Parts: sequence; structure tokens; C-alpha cells
Amino acid sequence: MPQLYNETPTVRKRKIVVQYWPPMNKKIKAKVVGATGYGGLGIIDLLLRHPCAEISALVAREDAGKRISDVYPHLAGFCDMPIHAADDPAVQGAYDVVFFSTPDRVGMADAKAELAKGAKVIDYSGDFRFTTLAAYQDYATRLGKDPQHLSPELLGTNVYGMPELHRAEIARANLVGNPGCFATSCILGLAPALKAHLVNPHGLVCDCKSGVSGAGKKAKPQFHYPERCEQINAYRLSGHQHVCEVERELGLQAGEDVTVIFTAQVLPISRGILSTLYGDLTQDVTEADVLDIYRKFYAESGFVRVLPSTAAVGTMSVRGTNFCDIVVSVDARTRKLRIVSIIDNLMKGQAGQALQNMNVMFGLPENTGLNQPGMYP
Amino acid sequence: MPQLYNETPTVRKRKIVVQYWPPMNKKIKAKVVGATGYGGLGIIDLLLRHPCAEISALVAREDAGKRISDVYPHLAGFCDMPIHAADDPAVQGAYDVVFFSTPDRVGMADAKAELAKGAKVIDYSGDFRFTTLAAYQDYATRLGKDPQHLSPELLGTNVYGMPELHRAEIARANLVGNPGCFATSCILGLAPALKAHLVNPHGLVCDCKSGVSGAGKKAKPQFHYPERCEQINAYRLSGHQHVCEVERELGLQAGEDVTVIFTAQVLPISRGILSTLYGDLTQDVTEADVLDIYRKFYAESGFVRVLPSTAAVGTMSVRGTNFCDIVVSVDARTRKLRIVSIIDNLMKGQAGQALQNMNVMFGLPENTGLNQPGMYP
Amino acid sequence: MPQLYNETPTVRKRKIVVQYWPPMNKKIKAKVVGATGYGGLGIIDLLLRHPCAEISALVAREDAGKRISDVYPHLAGFCDMPIHAADDPAVQGAYDVVFFSTPDRVGMADAKAELAKGAKVIDYSGDFRFTTLAAYQDYATRLGKDPQHLSPELLGTNVYGMPELHRAEIARANLVGNPGCFATSCILGLAPALKAHLVNPHGLVCDCKSGVSGAGKKAKPQFHYPERCEQINAYRLSGHQHVCEVERELGLQAGEDVTVIFTAQVLPISRGILSTLYGDLTQDVTEADVLDIYRKFYAESGFVRVLPSTAAVGTMSVRGTNFCDIVVSVDARTRKLRIVSIIDNLMKGQAGQALQNMNVMFGLPENTGLNQPGMYP
Amino acid sequence: MPQLYNETPTVRKRKIVVQYWPPMNKKIKAKVVGATGYGGLGIIDLLLRHPCAEISALVAREDAGKRISDVYPHLAGFCDMPIHAADDPAVQGAYDVVFFSTPDRVGMADAKAELAKGAKVIDYSGDFRFTTLAAYQDYATRLGKDPQHLSPELLGTNVYGMPELHRAEIARANLVGNPGCFATSCILGLAPALKAHLVNPHGLVCDCKSGVSGAGKKAKPQFHYPERCEQINAYRLSGHQHVCEVERELGLQAGEDVTVIFTAQVLPISRGILSTLYGDLTQDVTEADVLDIYRKFYAESGFVRVLPSTAAVGTMSVRGTNFCDIVVSVDARTRKLRIVSIIDNLMKGQAGQALQNMNVMFGLPENTGLNQPGMYP
Repeated sequence: MPQLYNETPTVRKRKIVVQYWPPMNKKIKAKVVGATGYGGLGIIDLLLRHPCAEISALVAREDAGKRISDVYPHLAGFCDMPIHAADDPAVQGAYDVVFFSTPDRVGMADAKAELAKGAKVIDYSGDFRFTTLAAYQDYATRLGKDPQHLSPELLGTNVYGMPELHRAEIARANLVGNPGCFATSCILGLAPALKAHLVNPHGLVCDCKSGVSGAGKKAKPQFHYPERCEQINAYRLSGHQHVCEVERELGLQAGEDVTVIFTAQVLPISRGILSTLYGDLTQDVTEADVLDIYRKFYAESGFVRVLPSTAAVGTMSVRGTNFCDIVVSVDARTRKLRIVSIIDNLMKGQAGQALQNMNVMFGLPENTGLNQPGMYP
Repeated sequence: MPQLYNETPTVRKRKIVVQYWPPMNKKIKAKVVGATGYGGLGIIDLLLRHPCAEISALVAREDAGKRISDVYPHLAGFCDMPIHAADDPAVQGAYDVVFFSTPDRVGMADAKAELAKGAKVIDYSGDFRFTTLAAYQDYATRLGKDPQHLSPELLGTNVYGMPELHRAEIARANLVGNPGCFATSCILGLAPALKAHLVNPHGLVCDCKSGVSGAGKKAKPQFHYPERCEQINAYRLSGHQHVCEVERELGLQAGEDVTVIFTAQVLPISRGILSTLYGDLTQDVTEADVLDIYRKFYAESGFVRVLPSTAAVGTMSVRGTNFCDIVVSVDARTRKLRIVSIIDNLMKGQAGQALQNMNVMFGLPENTGLNQPGMYP
Repeated sequence: MPQLYNETPTVRKRKIVVQYWPPMNKKIKAKVVGATGYGGLGIIDLLLRHPCAEISALVAREDAGKRISDVYPHLAGFCDMPIHAADDPAVQGAYDVVFFSTPDRVGMADAKAELAKGAKVIDYSGDFRFTTLAAYQDYATRLGKDPQHLSPELLGTNVYGMPELHRAEIARANLVGNPGCFATSCILGLAPALKAHLVNPHGLVCDCKSGVSGAGKKAKPQFHYPERCEQINAYRLSGHQHVCEVERELGLQAGEDVTVIFTAQVLPISRGILSTLYGDLTQDVTEADVLDIYRKFYAESGFVRVLPSTAAVGTMSVRGTNFCDIVVSVDARTRKLRIVSIIDNLMKGQAGQALQNMNVMFGLPENTGLNQPGMYP
Repeated sequence: MPQLYNETPTVRKRKIVVQYWPPMNKKIKAKVVGATGYGGLGIIDLLLRHPCAEISALVAREDAGKRISDVYPHLAGFCDMPIHAADDPAVQGAYDVVFFSTPDRVGMADAKAELAKGAKVIDYSGDFRFTTLAAYQDYATRLGKDPQHLSPELLGTNVYGMPELHRAEIARANLVGNPGCFATSCILGLAPALKAHLVNPHGLVCDCKSGVSGAGKKAKPQFHYPERCEQINAYRLSGHQHVCEVERELGLQAGEDVTVIFTAQVLPISRGILSTLYGDLTQDVTEADVLDIYRKFYAESGFVRVLPSTAAVGTMSVRGTNFCDIVVSVDARTRKLRIVSIIDNLMKGQAGQALQNMNVMFGLPENTGLNQPGMYP
């Protein structure tokens, strides 16, 4: 029987065990800003299950004054903490970690004060995904957003929060920009190929499909159930905000400029991203060669599972987990490399990766509180 | 066991903690028969997360010789154990607990041998839901099945596995018949009303709706995606196998005969049962009165959450959990009691309740390995 | 009109033919108010297919100035007419028929002027479903709405627009109140039983499940795709606006007061209502007896299909059609009649019934433009 | 307001009118082989609505002896004809047109006899999509199928049934091979670009996503509702049967060899294909240039709607219709042409195109019986 996954038995175990975490004798105290969105709820859920952390404060713009379980009944009895406004004196203390599960321009305004109080900060938005002011401004300008960064002095101290590519820097960082969901699937899917110069760095195709939760919890006409249940559509064909970080990260691997064409598409599923990625091969390789290159690249990265073209996997294979399943194939007739990269957009694409970053930042085993097989069916 | 729910804010813990289980210094060794169905996969998933149990053997009629993770890739790295045929010498040892996640007539043939080797047995089928031969034969006959029970001498030693109604007997039992999924929702929804003689015991209406997973993992024409995605339908209007256990259990609470009309309906969802239950009130009561009666009835039962008619809950409130949400309302104009009873058919309706029974049988806190808020969204 | 359904195999035609309509040599000119909601779009679609009618004006509160096909691209090339504000001089002419696909209190304000110009009016809301001021006020009061009717002088001239029960009156009427969607399924399902005094008129149970489109096209949090795709829930348990018309219409059939308990539930489907209805039998009858009574009752009503308990039908059987499928069953043990009544909420529950009413009001064969089998799968 | 669609007012009209068809004074008699699959049901539905054709015989391997409406209740009253076995003497007469809605190797065996009796034949399979034996054998060999064609003498008399590309030949043909569903979306999406030499003919990327109905009506484990409702997956990465016809047809347009890499993916929707197509531009063009080229190419083809990159369309825009919506965009940074091509796989991808072919073969207006806006929502 061929081994299906590139197991690193020391990282993933048969049995989900609570990791022993020696360096601390107290829990990591966490504050969650933007607690009532899908990203905030995701990190709440994960922190509740985490053996070495606890939720100390919840902040949100809406519903301040209510208990989180009044707004989200499924949390009743598990997390009944009050929601505070950002400026509420009750949530101005010192925390060990602060998650900004907020849109662009919130973290860049408020992270500094938290850092000053000694917190480690993980921001979900585009605010800290770029490490120079020029890169940030290029990103903001492309999107037609305000190019002024409110904390330019922090740029350079921040790290792009993808442990598979930046593990050591994240371990030393106090400020992490959590990657975009689409970007995570594209970068993990193509990084080994660019590192190995397997493909032409120009004109990579990223055909990306996401579940609706990627657009957040706010009801919108195009996500109204009757308008979505038989609908797949492409959107924002003129440019998507995740392209910048994909090109930057892949360029770092390639050691040269990378360009991608990116297509965002929405599916009638709740969770999941499947990205199909195409590149022009620069050399004659077989699928076995590519499997080997990818598995070596991710040998230390237990959340990435590299699979052959015959693998029967899809978004349900990773639902509710922090895994990224990568299926490799080589099309000899067109001399293309084709990668199918699959994640749960709310886990490896958002809260799961945020927790993975927290684990790395605090010296914990990377999969602490994240080592679960996902709900089936 | 401490209460875990909505009676007072202090009773359910904010943090999901692993319960300390003093009486054993080794893990409970479990054998799962019928491992590849939804019921078997459910108990595998729960046992993987359980702090005091471990999976020791997997048995299934199909796929023997393969690893479970070859058939279900989402388990890769978590459970890679081989699947054995029932008569494989490798799985004839002594186990602490054996789950028969099998259709009728399997457990009744094989449970005896497991009991003889000292195992506690939990059977998911109708085989051990009745404690007298006459009751079993009535059930089998109504369904047009073979009325001969293969282990009649065990009837009377078995207990109906609903801890909320039979906790003490389950704690002493070696053989438990795990309830049907529809039956669980109806019995939990109506038991307090019958115990308190709030409603006429005759002609109770059980209007039940289930997700497709309730029908098992086998592909069938009516569950083919294009045939189901816009479809709700009623089926088997002439009689459903769960009626017998509903009437028997409710009769035990009422102290007299109970009759129900039962309608089974299938929805285009994967998981979840919502049963709407109606009874004729025998006395003038308010919703507050009913809430009080129900909450007292379930005061020791942390998995039942009793809610007022204004509660905004549905199948997503319990998805992936062992909870049963019960919404009570009183219709004064028609003098009816109306109960909406909601469970996850694969959890409280199947594997979750099986694990709850195991916990009770082994003296563990009832919610060990089951105390989780469910995936959202 | 020839029968079109299940009485004898010869009555419904194999071929969908365009009916010949002798009395008119010009098309019926229709104005649609509320054109951009699901109800308005439904009647637009049907009028486009109708051989004897044409759309002459579109009115809506939103999107005035745009073309309907700019807002709904699927209509491009089929209906590119402009949307007008209600007070636009361009839409103040005389029309043959005006559809008010609008919420309560719009039709009651504006119908009068249309009637004065000679139009026949069909209103979708509760405004003209009651024929006395007292009945209207009872309805409005129960719902906590303003009980003042703006055109009380019209009450008494209006007719409840269910041709199966009021065909002759509708044929003579100028003002029709189109029934509610839930109400349609309940009334058609129970009318024959009450007419024949088969069931106790008190305490009838109406357990109703609807697709999301029943709530209209406006995006709301509970209908956001990720919040709905695995969700069924009951709502408004304290009382639903359709109860009044159900009790009134069934009372007319019974010749005495009728009371129902009504449960509204929402499903993760786009279109469809399945109502399961229960009544206490007053006499010993078989399913065959009930089938006979129902089929005689609906002998002239081609859109109602009466089926035995073994029929394999669901919401997909009527999707996109004006049919109501009624499955009858008798539960001898509890002496209950159980009816499963199935419609497409946007067709027989809304625009389809409105067009059926138009046909009757204009002396056309009742199924003109409505005789189609529905999309499958 | 820019015009949204490339309307050719003489082909598509605001009003759906029954086309006047002068050359015949009797109906076209049609025989449907493979009547019980989705493709057969689709053509039955369309023929029922067609003003100049009628169904004369239904043939299927399964359910022979039953009425089609016994198997598909939604057809009751509309089509109650018996299903015959292929060799039943009752269906050996002469028909005007025979649809083979059958898998490979049925039409190639039986078409000859039908042609000999004077019928025009439209075959849905791969049997007659290739006009030389060599091309057929290449196709069969690539798929690992039997390369022997059973009616090689017919090859060369057959025409590829895509009216947009082969209208004149189809009008003269007696034997048409109806295109594959994925192939239709790819060919229509890329043909104008290749004709105009806008893109490099090598290494075109076809990233295709289909609803489940594309796999037919047979229940399979991967399409069981609980396994599909949150699942998108790629399959058959080693090669798909539609690649041959895509490369052949695009090669005919380009006047040189074309190669594509093709990815088939399945979505949790019932109907619909969205294909995202990428090619390397050979010249500097703007979106406006491409729109112009495409609109001219399809000026006579009313079922193709060419749209700019800002168009908000998806699979719901074409559901239930024979339209192909094509969204064009140009990515200057990577110098790629990107086309989003959308069809209903059961209509333009199957039965709709078959009927369109019939119309062309019989000299009818191409959109007879097909000119409808589709069900919304």
C-alpha cells in the first residue's frame, strides 16, 4: 500500500494528545478584536480547545454590551464572556497575545499600543502583510485604497505569517501579518516549484474557488441563499487584493520577479478553497519528480499533505482542519505543471493559521490545539 | 456530574477541560464493528478525541484488508489502523467495550461472545432496544422483519441507552441498545410532558425532519445530489421503525399507554434532525410553567438545553455536538403543547449518545470527550 | 375547462398546446407593481410566456430608471423594459390588469385608482384577503399591525383568489386578494376533509416548511448562505400571519369555526413548501375513502393532484409549476388524517396562482400559460 | 446605458413567440433512445414544448414496459407514453428524427438502421463527434476504450453539432454528433480568439467546473448528498474525453494544431458549467478589442451572449436555457486572455443543443422551442 500522506510522525500522531508545554506555568492570555466575525469566532473556538491559552477579552464594534453567547447561541456554556467596545477601559490591560480579526486599517491604528504593553500581535488584514512602506503602498494603490500607512515605523518588524515559509522569523517576531485565504492556497501550492525553478516565474495561472464564508458573515444580495444555491461566478476580474502577497512570496522563493493571473470565484459551499494552479515547466519532469521535490520542501511542515494526481480529495478532506492538501500533476502534452491546492478558508486560510502562528511565536509545538481530523460527513 | 447548561450561568464551564478520571490507570480499549459506516466513523472520531479511551480494533464487512485512512483520507495520520473481517483471528481478543454500529441482526448474533469475554457492549440497532421478547417481536412484526431474536436470553439484561432517562441502569449495565435518531429527538422532547401528565397520551404528533446522513453512507437514487438539493419529502407514511421505542419510553414516563403518529421527512442537509411535536394539553399552563417543568426534569442532564419559544435555534445550533435543544411553546387557542426538539442525528442521535453511554457505563463524567461547541458556520 | 389531471389518463394532454382564446383580438395589457421582487419577477416570467397577455408597465420602489434586464440579466433580450416609480406619469394609463406584488398597505392605497380606470386588480398582500373590515382588523391586530384599512369601501367587492374554492366569484370579480403561500398549501390540503366533516374542526395541526425564497429577495443574516446551508429552524412560534386566512377559508368549507396550530419552518432550499397537516378523524374511513372524497372535491381543478400514501413526491415534483400535490394517509392507530400538501411557493403560492386568477377573471382557460411540467432535475 | 448583450433582435425577441414554420404541415415525429437518463428527459421536456415536433417513441434499456410518468412523476399528464426496449417491434417504424441520448457505442451500432429508414439522427455520445476513423481511434485510444468503430462507413457523413461553428453543414446533414458539455463551453469560449490568432494555440488552459447532473442520473458514492454538499474536487487529472474534440474544433478555427490542458472539477450544484479559459496573447489588445472580435464572430448566433469583464453573471444566469454567456477580460500584466464561459450543462451542453441541431436540420428558426429566459431564482 503506498503511503498516502507525507507523514512526519513526530508532528502528526494517530492519537490527538494534549501537548505538554514546559516553558510556561500559566496560560497565554488572549484578547480577540473583531470577535463577532467569522475570523473572530474561529479563533475563539480554537482558543477554547487550546490546552495552554485562554480568552481574556473580546472586542467588537457591534454588539458591545452583550455576551458573545447571546449573539452566537452555539457558544452558550462554552464562552459567555461580554463583548466590549475597543475603547472600553475593561479591555486596556496587558495581554500575552492580541488577535486583530479586523478589516484593513484597524490593526495599523491599534497594534502599536498593544505591542507597547508587551503583547504579541497577529493581524488578519493586509496591514502587516508587507514589510516595507513601498510594498504596502503598491498594494493599497492597486486596490484603490488609501496608501497612507498609520504605523509605518512598524513595517520591517512584522513578519508574513506563513510558518511553512517563515517559521524561524515568526518564532522571533512580535508582530505577524496573517496571510489571505486565497493567497495561502496559491503560495503553498506553488512555492516548491518556484524554489526549484521548475516553472517559468511569469504568467502563472491561479484559478481559485472559495466558499461563501470567505466573504465574511455580513449578508449580501449575492450570498442570499436563493441567489447562491445553484451559482458559481467569477468576480473582481480586474484585480484581487491577494495577488500582491502571492507574487511577493513566490518571488522570494524564486529569487526573481513572479507574475500571476488570478481568478477569484465563489461557490455554493460554506467553507473551503480549491485553487488550481498552472505553470509552464522549464524542464522535463515526471509527477514522481515533482512529488519528491514537494515532499522534501514540506518535510518539516505537518499541515501540508502532498498527494499524487490519483488522490481523491476535495474541500471536504480539509474541512474544519488546518491542513493544506496539495495534489501534483504534470501534463506532458502542454508541458505544464498543474497543482490543486485545497484548504479550509476559515482554518488554514484564517483562524487556524493565526493559531499556528501563535504556537510558533510562543515556542509551542506548531499543531497544539490544531491536530484534529475534521468533521465527516 | 456537575450541570453543564442553562440553569445557572455558573454551571457550564467556559473552558473545555479534559476531565480527570481517577478510577483507571489505563485506557479503555474499544472495538468498533461496522467501522466504515457513518456510525462507525462517528465513534472513531470521538474515541480519537477521548482522553481515557483508545481504538483497539476495527471491523467491517467491506474494505477488510485496507487501512481505514485509505478509505477515508480525512483520517490519515489520525487513524491508520487496518480494517478486519468480523471473523479475523486478529480481532477475537478481549476488549473493554465493543460498539456494534451495524444494522439489525448483527449485534444479536455476536454480542453474546463479546459479553462472555468481559466486554461492555453498545449496539446501535433495534436488536437491544427492547427488553422483552414480546416487545422485540412486536417491533419486528410491525416492520415485516424476522421476529426471531437470536439471543433472547440477553433480553432483560439490556438497557435502553438514553442516559437522561436511564442513567442509573446504564451505569450498571453491560449491554446497551443505543436509541434511534428520530426516537431520541421525540422522546427527549416529550418525556417531561408525559411524566407531568401535561398532555393527553393518545394521538401525539411527531413531525420529524432529518438530514440525509440519517439514511447512512450508501448512495441511493433519492439521495443523488441533483435529486435531493431542492427536495424535501415524506416517506414510509405507513409506519416507521422508531415508533415502537418512542411509545414504549413515553409510556414508561406516563405510567400508561401512549400512542403517536409519526411522520419521517428528509431534508437537503447533511446532518441534523428537527422534530416538531404536538400534544393536547390536559390543563391550563403557560410557557413559563412548561419551561419550569422541563428544566427541572433535565436538571441533571447537561446535554439537554431547554429554551423559550423566542429562541433562535435550528439544526446548526447543535451540529457536531451531543446537545439536544428543546424549544417549548404553548398555543392557548388550540390548547396544544408544541415542542421543537433538535439534535445532530450522527451525534446525540447516534455516535455521540453511544459515547455518552460508554462514559456512564465506565463511571466517567458523562460529557468526557463530548464537551464541545460544534463547528460554526 | 377540460380536466388536466389524474382522474382519467386521457384528460391531461400529452402536448402543451397554446390555448385558443376566442373572445379577444388583442392582448391583455398588464402593469406589474413591485416588479423587482421575487413575486414581480415571477409574474413577469409568466406573462412573457402567456399567449394572450403582454407586459405594459413595470413599477418598483427601487431601481426606477434602470431597465429590468440591467437588474436581472437573465431577462436580457426577453424583457428590457424600464422600471418606473409608482408616480411616474408614464405609468398612469389604463391597463387591463394590475398586479400588486407588494407588501401590506401598498395595494390598499393604490388599487382604487386602478379599478377606477377599469383595470382588474390582483394584490399579493394581506390587504384584500379579507372581505369585511372586522376580519381585516382582526388579522392586522393579531400581527400587531396598523388596523386601519385605507380602502374599507372596497372590502366586500374583493374575492379570495383561490380558484379551486372560489372560481365563480373570481370570474366575476375586479379585485382579488392573492392567497398567502403557506395558506395555499394548508387550505388546499384540508378543505375537502372539512367540507366532508371528516375531521374535528378544532386543533388542526399545520406543520409547514418553506424554501428561503418565501421570505423574499432581500438579503438577511439568517438567509446568508453559510448560515442557512445546513439549517432548518422554526420561527415566529407565537403566531403567523397566514393563520387567519386558513381558519377563515376552512371555516367556510366546514360551515363552522375552525382552529389551527400553525408552525412555520425554513429549509435550505430555494423554492418549495411542504406542509404536513393532521386532523382528528370523526369517523372510521380508509385511505381509499379519503382519496375518493378528495378527488371528487378537486374534479374540476386541474392543478391539484391527489395521490395515495405510497406516492414518491416532494418539492421537486412541483418545482416551477402551478401544481399542488396532495398525499393522503390515514393513521388508524391514532385515528388521525394526515395530509402532505406540496407546492412551489413562488408559483401556486404566489405568481402562478396570480396568473391563474387572471385567467379566470378574463374568461381564459385556467391553465393558459401555466401548463408545464417543471424543470427536472 | 451600454447594451449588455450582443442582441440580434431578429433572433431573440422580447416576447417569446411561437415561430411560424412554413415548410411543413405536419409535426416532426421524434424517437428518443435513452429516454430515462437526464439527456433523454431533457429532450422529452423540450419536445413537449416545441410547436412543430412531437414525441413518437421512447426507448430505454431500463424500465421498459412502464410509462415514463411512472418513473418520473413530474411528467404525469404531460407525457405518459410507454418505455420500450430497443428491439421492441413497436418502435421499429420510420421517424423523422432519432435522438440517441446514450453512452458511447450505442449510436454507432444502431444509427445506420434509422438513417436507412429516412430519419435524421442526433447522437449525444462520442461516436459521431469525429469525422475520420483515425480521429475516432485516437479519441478511443486515449481513453482506453475499444478503438473499433462499428459504422466506420458513416464517418465523414456526420457533422459536429455545434451550430455556431457548423451551421451550414448541419443544415445539410442527416447525422450529427452532439458535442460534449465541457467541450461546448471551451470551444465557444475560445473559438473567436483562435480564429483571430489572438492567442498562442499551444498550452491553452481550460479550468472547467460542472454541476453533478453532468455525471448523469446514476447514484454514485461521490455524489451522495452528504458527500457532495460541501465538496468541490478535481478528477481524472490524467485526461478527459472532451479534450480531443476541443483541440480538433479549435484547430479548425486556428488553421493549425492546438493543445489544451484541461481540468474537470465537480461542484455541489445540480446544473451548470463555468469554464475559465486562459491563453497567451500574441498581440497587444484591449478588452474592447476582444469584445468586438467576439461579438462579430457570434453576430448570427443568438444563443451566445458576449459580455465585458464587469458583467455579474454566473451559472444561474443560464440555468434552464440554451444560452452560453461569455465574459472576456485581458490581463495586461501577464499578457493573458481570460474567458469565462458559462452554460447549463443539460441545455446548451446537451439536450438544448440537440434541439438546436434538430431545428437547423429541419430548416426551422434555430431558437424554436428554446427561446426562454430560465427559471429565477
